[in-house]
Amino acid sequence: MKERVYNFNPGPATLPLPVLQQVQQELLNYRNSGMSIMEMSHRSKDFEAIVHETEALFKEISGIGDDYRVLFLQGGASQQFALVPMNFLPPEKSAAYAVTGNFAKKAYQEAARIGKPRVAVSTADDNFSRIPGLDEINLSPEDAYLHLTTNNTVYGTEWHYIPDIKGVPLVADMSSDILSRPWDYNKFDLFYAGAQKNIGPAGVVVVAVRKSLLEKVPDHLPSIFNYRLLAEKDSLYNTPPNFAIYVLKLVLEWIRDSGGLAAIGKTNKEKAGLLYEAIDAHDLYTGFAQKESRSLMNVTFRLPSEELDKQFIAEAAEKGLVGIKGYRTLGGIRASIYNAMTKKGCELLAEFMNDFAKKHG
Amino acid sequence: MKERVYNFNPGPATLPLPVLQQVQQELLNYRNSGMSIMEMSHRSKDFEAIVHETEALFKEISGIGDDYRVLFLQGGASQQFALVPMNFLPPEKSAAYAVTGNFAKKAYQEAARIGKPRVAVSTADDNFSRIPGLDEINLSPEDAYLHLTTNNTVYGTEWHYIPDIKGVPLVADMSSDILSRPWDYNKFDLFYAGAQKNIGPAGVVVVAVRKSLLEKVPDHLPSIFNYRLLAEKDSLYNTPPNFAIYVLKLVLEWIRDSGGLAAIGKTNKEKAGLLYEAIDAHDLYTGFAQKESRSLMNVTFRLPSEELDKQFIAEAAEKGLVGIKGYRTLGGIRASIYNAMTKKGCELLAEFMNDFAKKHG
Repeated sequence: MKERVYNFNPGPATLPLPVLQQVQQELLNYRNSGMSIMEMSHRSKDFEAIVHETEALFKEISGIGDDYRVLFLQGGASQQFALVPMNFLPPEKSAAYAVTGNFAKKAYQEAARIGKPRVAVSTADDNFSRIPGLDEINLSPEDAYLHLTTNNTVYGTEWHYIPDIKGVPLVADMSSDILSRPWDYNKFDLFYAGAQKNIGPAGVVVVAVRKSLLEKVPDHLPSIFNYRLLAEKDSLYNTPPNFAIYVLKLVLEWIRDSGGLAAIGKTNKEKAGLLYEAIDAHDLYTGFAQKESRSLMNVTFRLPSEELDKQFIAEAAEKGLVGIKGYRTLGGIRASIYNAMTKKGCELLAEFMNDFAKKHG
Repeated sequence: MKERVYNFNPGPATLPLPVLQQVQQELLNYRNSGMSIMEMSHRSKDFEAIVHETEALFKEISGIGDDYRVLFLQGGASQQFALVPMNFLPPEKSAAYAVTGNFAKKAYQEAARIGKPRVAVSTADDNFSRIPGLDEINLSPEDAYLHLTTNNTVYGTEWHYIPDIKGVPLVADMSSDILSRPWDYNKFDLFYAGAQKNIGPAGVVVVAVRKSLLEKVPDHLPSIFNYRLLAEKDSLYNTPPNFAIYVLKLVLEWIRDSGGLAAIGKTNKEKAGLLYEAIDAHDLYTGFAQKESRSLMNVTFRLPSEELDKQFIAEAAEKGLVGIKGYRTLGGIRASIYNAMTKKGCELLAEFMNDFAKKHG
C-alpha cells in the first residue's frame, strides 16, 4: 500500500488521520451495536444522541450561545444559496451581498432567482484579489440581511474583520474557513458551511442560526426548505446523512481535543506563514491575493509561465505533495491548508518551494 | 467485539457485509491514491469516473436505456417531493397523486405547497392496507404527471403492477423497493429513491429521469433544484456526497454480481414468503396488509396486545434479531427485509415466530 500523501485539495479535503482510523476501526460494528453506523436507524436513541452531542459540541467550540440552533442538512452551501433568500428575503425587501469571489457571486445570482438582492460591494474590478473595507460596503437599514463569504477559496482571500452593520442581520457562507480560528461567531445571525473543508466529509452542511431569526420564516415553504421546521425536528425531519454527521462529530472532537480554536488558529497561522514566506522570498512566485487580504486557508500564487506551473505541480507530486493545481478559471497554484493539513505538510511544501526557486529562479 | 446482529431496520438499513468490508479495507487509502475516498476532489478524474460508472451500472441493472439520465443528489426522497412539482408542475396544470400511505401523502402535501396537485386515489379509508386497482385511479389526460409510491414502508404494501396511463408521465417514489425485483422501469418517466434501504447508505438519492422530460424544466428555478442543469453537470454541479456515492456503487456492483434483479427478486420473494407463511400459520399474528397487496420489503403484523408486541420484540433482540418495532403511529411489528438482509436472517426470524407462537398461541 502506497503511503498517504500530503493532500492540499480544496475540498473534499484531507481529514485528521486519527479520525479516519477510528472510522475504520468501528465501521462494521459501531460501539457494540452489532451494526455499522451507516446501518443505524436515525430514530434510534443512539443516533439521536449523536445529533444532540454534535450540536452541543459545535456550540461549545464556536462559542455561540443557547440563542442559536445548529442544523445538519444536505445539499452543500449551494443549497443554502437558495434557502437563505427563500426563508429570509421577503418580496418587498432587498438583501445586500458582498461579492468578493466566485461563490459569493453565485450566492448573489441564486438569490436573484428568488427575490431582489443587490450588490452591496464588489471587488470584481480588482479581479477579486482583496477584501473590501467597511467604508466600501453600501449598506441600508432596510436590507433583509447582508451576506458575506468569509473566505474565497478560488482567489485565496479572507475576511479578517467582521463588519459592524447595526440592526441588519449578518449572514455568512463560511464553507472554507469555519472553525479555523478564534472569531466572534455571535456577531453572525446565520452562518453555514459545507463540512468538507475544515470540519468533516462532503454530504453534510452545518447551519447555525439565531433562534429569533427563525420566527421570520414564512409558512408556505416546502417543509424540507423550512429552517424553522428543520430546527423543531432537531435535523431529523427526514433521514439525515447519518455517516457524514458521525464523521463531523469525530472531527469536532478532534478540534476540541487539539485545544479548540485558539490552538487550531495558532497552528493555521504558522502553516500559512510558512507558505507566504516562501512566496515573498522568491521572485519566481507571485502571490495572487493582496497581502492584507491573504487567506490562511487557500494560498494562491503563480509562476512566470504555465509551463513552470505544470512542472512545479508535477515535481511536487513526486514528493507526495498533491492537489495544488489552481482553480480552473484562475490557473497557477493553490495550496489548501485547512485544519487537518499538518504543519509538517506545510513545512515540506515550503521547503519544496525554496528548492524549486533555487533551481529555476 | 459483539457479533453483528440481524438488522431489520426500515432505513437506514443493513448493508451487504462484503461491501462494508471493502469500505473498511480501503478507507485510509483508496486504491493507491494515497487518500481516503472522503478526501478526494470531486473534480478529479478518479471521482468523475466513479460517477459515470455508477450511472452506467444503474442503467445496466435497471434496464433503462440511453434515453434516461441518472442523477445522484442530496436531501433524500423528501426533497424530491418538492423538486418534482418545482420542475414539472406548471401553475396552469394539475398533477395526480395516488395516496397509498404515509410518504405518498407527504409527497402530495408538499406538492400542494408548490402547485395544485389532486388526489387521484386514496386508500385512507382502508387504513392504507391495500394498493388500489387501475379502475380506481381517477386519471385525466391533462395531468402533468401521476405520482405513485411503489412500496409503502409504514404499512407494508407494494404495487405489483404498473398502471398504464397512456400519455401522462408516470413518476414514482421507489425509496423502499428500488432494484429489489425485475420490473419494467422504462414505463416510468421519472423515479427516485433514497439509497438507504435497498442500494446504499443515507445521504444520496438516485433520480432516474427520461431525457425528453428534462426539456420541460422551467429556466427560473434556483440552480440546485433544476434537474436539467444537474443532468448537464453530471451530478457535479456542486460538491457531491462522494463517500455515499462510492458506497452506492459498491452495492450496485454487489447486486450485479449476485445475479442482477432476476436473482435478487427470487431471493426477496423467498425471504418474504418465509415470514408471511409464519404469519398465516398462527392465529397469534395478524398481518396488516391485505394479502394481494403485501410488500416483499416490509412485513407488518401485530400480536393480540401491545404487551405481547413488546415481549416479542425483546425476545427477538435476545436472539440478535433487531429493528422490528412497528412504525410509531401504527405499532405492532415491522420486519424490513431489503436486498441486503440475508435469507438466513429471515429463516431465523420465521423460526423465532414459530417458536414464540407455540409458547403464546
